[in-house]
Amino acid sequence: MALLFMSSAWDNDTWLNRTRALDAAIDLRGWPEVGDAQDIRYAMVWKPPAGELAKLPNLQVIFSLGAGVDHIFQDPALPDCPVVRTVDNNLTMRMSEYVVLHVLMHHRQVRRYGAQQGSKIWQGHAQAGADEVRVGVLGMGVLGSDAAAKLAIMGFQVAGWSNSRKSVDGVESFAGQPELKAFLNRTDILVALLPLTPYTKGFINRHLLRELARDGQGAGPILINTGRGGVQVEADILAALEAGELEAATLDVFETEPLPEASALWTHPRVTVTPHNSADSDPRALCGSVLEQIRRFEAGEPLENLVDRERSY
Amino acid sequence: MALLFMSSAWDNDTWLNRTRALDAAIDLRGWPEVGDAQDIRYAMVWKPPAGELAKLPNLQVIFSLGAGVDHIFQDPALPDCPVVRTVDNNLTMRMSEYVVLHVLMHHRQVRRYGAQQGSKIWQGHAQAGADEVRVGVLGMGVLGSDAAAKLAIMGFQVAGWSNSRKSVDGVESFAGQPELKAFLNRTDILVALLPLTPYTKGFINRHLLRELARDGQGAGPILINTGRGGVQVEADILAALEAGELEAATLDVFETEPLPEASALWTHPRVTVTPHNSADSDPRALCGSVLEQIRRFEAGEPLENLVDRERSY
Repeated sequence: MALLFMSSAWDNDTWLNRTRALDAAIDLRGWPEVGDAQDIRYAMVWKPPAGELAKLPNLQVIFSLGAGVDHIFQDPALPDCPVVRTVDNNLTMRMSEYVVLHVLMHHRQVRRYGAQQGSKIWQGHAQAGADEVRVGVLGMGVLGSDAAAKLAIMGFQVAGWSNSRKSVDGVESFAGQPELKAFLNRTDILVALLPLTPYTKGFINRHLLRELARDGQGAGPILINTGRGGVQVEADILAALEAGELEAATLDVFETEPLPEASALWTHPRVTVTPHNSADSDPRALCGSVLEQIRRFEAGEPLENLVDRERSY
Repeated sequence: MALLFMSSAWDNDTWLNRTRALDAAIDLRGWPEVGDAQDIRYAMVWKPPAGELAKLPNLQVIFSLGAGVDHIFQDPALPDCPVVRTVDNNLTMRMSEYVVLHVLMHHRQVRRYGAQQGSKIWQGHAQAGADEVRVGVLGMGVLGSDAAAKLAIMGFQVAGWSNSRKSVDGVESFAGQPELKAFLNRTDILVALLPLTPYTKGFINRHLLRELARDGQGAGPILINTGRGGVQVEADILAALEAGELEAATLDVFETEPLPEASALWTHPRVTVTPHNSADSDPRALCGSVLEQIRRFEAGEPLENLVDRERSY
């Protein structure tokens, strides 16, 4: 059997070297140098070029080298074999760092105090406690649940929304479309960690943003999107900022990446732009996770973190 | 019995109103309108003017309206009665918000990405995980211990240094002068939460800063002081920044407050200045805590959070 690394975006050498360092004996190939396509039983991929996976007749499992799998399902010729999502503690930790950081930056008025320092102004401002601020996490998968739990530990009033009801310590659970409005109505700071699927495309639009709470004790309403850019409608975010329906936004993901220079988001005084770096995949941890899953699969054990094709996540 | 509010810095009305809202029946006075000084059995104070507490012949307990008590011990005529420190969950939560926020800001390179946004630059940079970064908390009282525990939950390698050994989940304990060097040598990001006492005055000086780790995987060495300004030597911090011995500093407290306009800290590109707002006392919570302690004391129960006069904290 052989394992193929395939990416239209990432450097082969890094990933091949990391994988070989963990398992020197493995038959490892780097696309486009596939060799005999019949040999390839496993593919670990990030943004695989459309049609290429279909050329591997004996492919048994596709491993996504990231938490999202939308980059795989964009391929109309995707072969009908199991797709496995990366669930990696290191990536989860990094995502929660980003979420807690940016929630706290809004909560503690970092931009305001930064501007004051620039003018040598020594002046405190009214400051709500975390326990007076309601954070809502949209998307309660592994990443959303960890971020929500850590925000609760920091003292925030945290709720999560997801398709199915979740049980996370200190976090109120809202589930499904019927509870979405109530979830938004009680949320001062919205953290979006949704996967990109046909259902979530354009989910964060003007209509949704208008439902956020506007009677909070602290900052708000605020949007933090660190899931997928396709989930947001950027024109609506800008319009909501202008209309006073949104106080500020921190965006790590965008409809088009890199964010085009012409985007008004770059220079908006109440928007923070980061270059999709909320939780970089750690090659060593991810390769280790893929090898471990291959070992389990070959031993006849079930695959973990299998993607549901119907839900696309 | 009467309770006196005394402060050379804070507004009487706020504090008197908050206290009355909690206990309408209490005989409450606001300095300098003391009335008959014989009546005063309790004083709740913030920066009491020197010599004024000594004029109260029947004073039984002094309550500090903040975590620190150095503002009380500066009075050479301080009467010999118990001094009680404020320990308030709300203040602890706020302090940990500040500490976790500013550790994460350094860790996740917020200034760098902010500058990039200003130039519309889409560029990621190598990013250590929290688990590769060693944070050291100098001063493991109630505030330091809570901040350390929360940093550990975020994934950092956390150690604490204090006079006596402490047991906090996930936090390595260093104790006393003999273990100070080892604590500093393993620390990338130093968070100072020391009280100001004769022993800690000028504690954070060039010599101490030189002992911080310089072989870290992430940012560092970095100083965050959110305890008391008298603990730091600002000229030494600036010199260490210039000499490359210190990468950056976030300071909420200063030798002189407000920070004088002439201070080079205001404009240093690697220094963050905040106006001593890391954890503002919440009047309602503090007044409630004072009233509760008075109730306990009058019922013959022991006072909590009594200050040790010899150690001055």
